[in-house]
Amino acid sequence: MSVGLEIPANLLSIKGIRLAVTSANIYVEKRNDLTLIEISESSAVSAVFTNNLFCAAPVKLAKKNLEKSEPRYLLINAGNANAGTGKQGIINASNICERLSELTSCQETEVLPFSTGVIGEHLPVEKINEALPIIIENLSNDNWLEAAKAIMTTDTIPKAVSSQLSIDGLTVSITGVAKGAGMIRPDMATMLSFVATDANISKSLLDKILSSAVNQSFNRITIDGDTSTNDACVIISTGRANNSLIDSSDNVNYLALENAVLKVCRELAQAIVRDGEGATKFITIDVSGGKDSEECLKVAYKIAESPLVKTAFTASDANWGRILAAVGNSGISDLDVDKVDIHLDDVCIVKNGGRCESYTEADGKKIMSQDEIRLSVKLDRGLSMEEIWTTDLSHEYITINAEYRT
Amino acid sequence: MSVGLEIPANLLSIKGIRLAVTSANIYVEKRNDLTLIEISESSAVSAVFTNNLFCAAPVKLAKKNLEKSEPRYLLINAGNANAGTGKQGIINASNICERLSELTSCQETEVLPFSTGVIGEHLPVEKINEALPIIIENLSNDNWLEAAKAIMTTDTIPKAVSSQLSIDGLTVSITGVAKGAGMIRPDMATMLSFVATDANISKSLLDKILSSAVNQSFNRITIDGDTSTNDACVIISTGRANNSLIDSSDNVNYLALENAVLKVCRELAQAIVRDGEGATKFITIDVSGGKDSEECLKVAYKIAESPLVKTAFTASDANWGRILAAVGNSGISDLDVDKVDIHLDDVCIVKNGGRCESYTEADGKKIMSQDEIRLSVKLDRGLSMEEIWTTDLSHEYITINAEYRT
Repeated sequence: MSVGLEIPANLLSIKGIRLAVTSANIYVEKRNDLTLIEISESSAVSAVFTNNLFCAAPVKLAKKNLEKSEPRYLLINAGNANAGTGKQGIINASNICERLSELTSCQETEVLPFSTGVIGEHLPVEKINEALPIIIENLSNDNWLEAAKAIMTTDTIPKAVSSQLSIDGLTVSITGVAKGAGMIRPDMATMLSFVATDANISKSLLDKILSSAVNQSFNRITIDGDTSTNDACVIISTGRANNSLIDSSDNVNYLALENAVLKVCRELAQAIVRDGEGATKFITIDVSGGKDSEECLKVAYKIAESPLVKTAFTASDANWGRILAAVGNSGISDLDVDKVDIHLDDVCIVKNGGRCESYTEADGKKIMSQDEIRLSVKLDRGLSMEEIWTTDLSHEYITINAEYRT
Repeated sequence: MSVGLEIPANLLSIKGIRLAVTSANIYVEKRNDLTLIEISESSAVSAVFTNNLFCAAPVKLAKKNLEKSEPRYLLINAGNANAGTGKQGIINASNICERLSELTSCQETEVLPFSTGVIGEHLPVEKINEALPIIIENLSNDNWLEAAKAIMTTDTIPKAVSSQLSIDGLTVSITGVAKGAGMIRPDMATMLSFVATDANISKSLLDKILSSAVNQSFNRITIDGDTSTNDACVIISTGRANNSLIDSSDNVNYLALENAVLKVCRELAQAIVRDGEGATKFITIDVSGGKDSEECLKVAYKIAESPLVKTAFTASDANWGRILAAVGNSGISDLDVDKVDIHLDDVCIVKNGGRCESYTEADGKKIMSQDEIRLSVKLDRGLSMEEIWTTDLSHEYITINAEYRT
């Protein structure tokens, strides 16, 4: 079940990037669960990782390797998170990186490992190592969709987006993949997302683009309020579009590329929400009129993560009392509740802190029955606004999460 | 569905307190939905209310009246929260208080109104006023169980507790009722709780007892993380036990009474959790070894309110990875995760931040299959500890909250 998503089509290959997938038999029912992304030399790579203190072994190792070398390979497995696995987890993650480096004649630190799946079980190192020679043989420019599929866990549909823009009259391409579905309330990123462009850009500006794009995309979604142990988002620029290097003197092209990457990341982030565990609705929550961004986000997340609001969305019940109660609980001590307005799409449901006089249950029900809903809260105390995306809370969510391991 | 609760038996009447219930026809299917508590003259009354900024009209009025007079009547309706009802809500709450004061020849400010039920619909003032003469006629010493039933909304079982202690060789009694079920994560109290004792105690010490008892009972429970607009807890001391006044010079009797009231409040608070919407498990979470109380509570609530942890409890799945991820997300930036131990009852599941070596899935499953489970987290960084109570997240919760108004 997903809201408004289709299998991605027309994905663009990125010059300088090759991908491959195979089955390492991590899942009981055989499927592609191993993905390799090969990055051409002299590319730039930026990455951000989960803020969860119990971060997984591959996250620890990827961070360490990233400090030492420019990555040449990203090695991603689904079905096992290699989290909560202690020292053995680090040894196991190192082991597969080392084996890959031997087979590809690169440095071990030029491999970044990523894992997603069940927490607390040891990585099946032998199975992965056995699959490495095969996956290296399969490397190809046009495996983006296969990669999007192979990194899925409880996702029901692959998520991938491509975009193009013109820089210096040259065509620059961007393609990204992501997976999500549960344990999604990134402090930083979705569980896993990999974005590549052939743009030629300095490493420091690539870092800046990643930080800015993630903040306005993956950091604006919540499904269940839980932040994963394995979240990571990586962006690669290969420079093969051959545009003249975008550096700090070239603000026009920087902004054009930033905007294009942001759009790709936002679409991927929204796709994660649209395919959220048990999602039956795609809900945009915007909070405006706040004193600062932080208080707008406080209100937005309090609404988005209230089980009572979420179940009202599932029921298509315009239960504005629950929304209002969530606003009242958002921790802004000097909020003047008598100034708060709330709209569902263009229907005013709360005016000046109380039920809007023109509001009818029929109007509310009509909007709430849609697959896609915008909930707007106006605080009338400042000029800041923020927007986040979330889903409802359905029986399906319970079924998925009460049965995931069994 | 509730966990380990039975219909309360052997409730003690409290000298100086009379109660009555009737139907004001607020519910479509006729049931007792109106409760009146009469308090004898020269009693002391303390109350605490919700911190939700969108507090309901009766909460606003009750707070105001409490500042002006010693209450003689508590008038409680179920089925309508009179919240999000603007100025008309206040007028309506005043109206029923005024009518009751006329009929009982007291001051309007001597009546405190309480409402619980659906948010955003206007109070059926006529229906309530019509029922007032009847309810006054029904006042009796021994209607505590009837009151516990009449204040219920989505509760499945009435909640009431009695206790006795000896002060000055005289018997002092305490009886309390409570209702809860959903929108339960009190910043202050459960949705509604009324506790009375015939002890003779100064008003200032009664305030102190209420504050201390609520903090260690109703403020330690969470079902869904939502704080209601209508939460209130009231304690009444009638003085009719005729013990010599407990004041600041009498620490021994103060502590004895405080302890007895705390036990009553804790049992009522736990009963609210045991009857939480869709609850299939009663879960105690204790966090010890924290630097202060606040960080212990942060960890405890992060675990208790994680939908992934809650659904694992529903599934009897000892998914310690989800618990560990919640601890890692609790916002203690300098937590050393390698020192964290986690137990389910007496089974060690996490040792030094990783899976405990002696742990087996069978051991975990055995504990998780119980109706009542203790989850203990040791942080090993200080001497503070806190304990809270919560439930799991089941299909039944979704059903109740996706269908409550329809």
